[in-house]
Formats: sequence, C-alpha cells, structure tokens
Amino acid sequence: MNLLRDLPGARAGEVIETLVAAPGVRIERIVSLGQASLPGFWYDQEEAEWVLLLQGAAQLRFADETEARLLGPGDHLHIAPHRRHRVEWTDPRQPTVWLAVFHR
Amino acid sequence: MNLLRDLPGARAGEVIETLVAAPGVRIERIVSLGQASLPGFWYDQEEAEWVLLLQGAAQLRFADETEARLLGPGDHLHIAPHRRHRVEWTDPRQPTVWLAVFHR
Repeated sequence: MNLLRDLPGARAGEVIETLVAAPGVRIERIVSLGQASLPGFWYDQEEAEWVLLLQGAAQLRFADETEARLLGPGDHLHIAPHRRHRVEWTDPRQPTVWLAVFHR
Repeated sequence: MNLLRDLPGARAGEVIETLVAAPGVRIERIVSLGQASLPGFWYDQEEAEWVLLLQGAAQLRFADETEARLLGPGDHLHIAPHRRHRVEWTDPRQPTVWLAVFHR
C-alpha cells in the first residue's frame, strides 16, 4: 500500500480515500489536480485537521490571514475547528497529494 | 514548518517530535539513521498506530509474519493494538523519516 504510486486520475475532481476511520480520528489521502475551492467558499469544520502535503504544490488561505500559504512536499499545518480556510490553488500540471488527519 | 527539511541528526539515536497531541490522537515524526529495535525486543502497544514512511528506507517485522516488510517513501500500514512488531533495519546511509499516528 503506497500513497504516492498509481495515483488515481483527478482531472475531473479531487479523489478522497479514507485510510483510517476510528472513533476519534479519520485519516484521508486527497489527490488534487488543479482544483481550488469555489469562489467565496470557506471550509468551516467541526473537527480539528492536521494536514501534510506529500507531493505537488498548493496554496491554502486562512480567512484571518491576508495572504495564501504556498505549500510544498513536507509542509504541514494544524487547522483548529472553525478556523475558516480555503484552497486557493493546486498545481494543474502534476497531482498534489495531501494527507489529512481529522480529530476532535 | 516542513517535515523533510533541516532534519535533526539522528546518528546517536532516533529523534521523535510530537506534532499533534489531542485526547484521542498523537502524531509524531520520527527520524532514524541506522537504528533498529534491540534483538528480541517487540513493540506491544496499547494504542493503534498508523505509520507512513516519508523518506528513506526501513524494514518492519510483525511477530505473526515470517518476513520483514521493506518500506519506502509512501508506504503505509496500520498496526492494531498489541500486534507485536519491531524495526529490523533502517537505512544507515540516509535519514529515514516516519510519520506515526497513534489513536484509540
């Protein structure tokens, strides 16, 4: 089982795979290819989320910050519950692979 | 914050950093450089563990399997509570970076 090999095609939309689902935690792999959050859309989540970019490139923006953060492989951040954020950009030329750990 | 840049020196011993600690989950980065579990030692953990190898190479052995599994970047596996396992080998020539998510 490898998170970086034989990636699913994501041209038509992000592909989300749940790797672990347990009472207090859910681990997902998300493959993006050029997708971004819709204009004006902000994630506003009940759960905390720790996110790690494994491959590719993305820009993530927090509503309480003026500029998006550019993320590359190895970059990670923790998103507190209800901290509004959006994906401004993912690289359209190569798959971007995210690991997301949602928890309480 | 990047998990793959400016790695700590691990020649003298594995370096464990806790990235997230919450009631039901703990996320750690572990940097190894040639370490292995002591002869005859087996991990026997109360918690479940999901482990992802981010960089480098390692061999992980389960007590209920005859051969060690060779892990490279992107390889992941889930270790049930009390499933005994050990690290047979990590690459002595380059740092091996693990991500471990412990949960209930």
